[in-house]
Amino acid sequence: MTYSTNFSIEDLRFDNYGLIPAIAQDWLDGSILMLAWMNKESLTMTLETKNVHYWSRSRSEIWRKGATSGSTQILKEIRFDCDNDALILLIEQNGSGACHTGEKSCFFNEIKINQSDKKEKKTTPFSNICSELFNTINERSINPSEKSYTNHLLTKGSNTILKKIGEESAEFIMACKDNDKNSISNEAADLIYHLQVALMHKGVNWRDVLAVLESRRNNN
Amino acid sequence: MTYSTNFSIEDLRFDNYGLIPAIAQDWLDGSILMLAWMNKESLTMTLETKNVHYWSRSRSEIWRKGATSGSTQILKEIRFDCDNDALILLIEQNGSGACHTGEKSCFFNEIKINQSDKKEKKTTPFSNICSELFNTINERSINPSEKSYTNHLLTKGSNTILKKIGEESAEFIMACKDNDKNSISNEAADLIYHLQVALMHKGVNWRDVLAVLESRRNNN
Repeated sequence: MTYSTNFSIEDLRFDNYGLIPAIAQDWLDGSILMLAWMNKESLTMTLETKNVHYWSRSRSEIWRKGATSGSTQILKEIRFDCDNDALILLIEQNGSGACHTGEKSCFFNEIKINQSDKKEKKTTPFSNICSELFNTINERSINPSEKSYTNHLLTKGSNTILKKIGEESAEFIMACKDNDKNSISNEAADLIYHLQVALMHKGVNWRDVLAVLESRRNNN
Repeated sequence: MTYSTNFSIEDLRFDNYGLIPAIAQDWLDGSILMLAWMNKESLTMTLETKNVHYWSRSRSEIWRKGATSGSTQILKEIRFDCDNDALILLIEQNGSGACHTGEKSCFFNEIKINQSDKKEKKTTPFSNICSELFNTINERSINPSEKSYTNHLLTKGSNTILKKIGEESAEFIMACKDNDKNSISNEAADLIYHLQVALMHKGVNWRDVLAVLESRRNNN
């Protein structure tokens, strides 16, 4: 056992079937990949090996995630909730994705809650607004629209996009000098957006930037 | 009913108690706030009112989240998984937080999985690496450390920090002109970091920037 001696699996509350729900969350962008179940034994194996093991309710057996598909999950962090009956596994997902369908996340079905929603029913999992922005830019690059400012920039090309980086960083600096909080957050958003357009144009994924930031954790 | 006519609650698989687990996820930064349970009636009430209702297993009654505490949850998006037996609620959390303890998230207990982990057991919930970076910068500003580069910058003040914005944006532009993908992702990370230090110095939260980006969704 390498986990904290303060923690005992006996402190967790397993249900009448001896199970506890475990949410697998991507360790970089925060997207929820799946919800599965663990018993004491599969949790112990997960903590000992850092390879995520679940309990299969349909097959009534322990199941090392990805054992046959290669879509293994490496445990990075683990948390439990205030009433000790649910887990979050922060994981690095290997292979094509967490879902048996090949999708990144099992949660690809969206229920439309507004009649005006134009989104497709099947969508990528939500992670966070900053990563969603990059997904939108990626979508525009695949399916261009005449009215899209993103497509305008991508069509104009490198120098137009990079001039915008200079312009937006200068505007951010000026907003800071003006001590205008509303303007600061707006200019920061502008800079992030144009930074992401530049990344897209150069074939660099936002996830690559998150990986760099992750590698520097605890160095700041 | 305002949700898609393609979807029927009857398509979902409720357990032997008539319940389905629902994960509440923050609609801006992606942090997981709680896991609770819904029956058909509480799900219907949630979809109809956009105010999240759960089923309380301890009190055996429907429970409008925040009815007494004020910590209500407003539904923004809802998804179900590939085998129709789990939900994600993308929500705006009002009040002090989702947890009855006053914490933002119920998942504040971390199990240490490496002996070398120096982190405290009680920690803020993970959201995504970019938001985590801002949390770290915030932590440094509250508990300064002599060796911290972040504290060096914050102590030097506005002009030092803003000169770094100019420098890092120029380095990002040059990396793009050089078509060096590794350098591009590293320089982007540098720029994000210094942007966040400037935000912290000016008292602007990273979450404020996410809110601006959210308000612009579908405009790119």
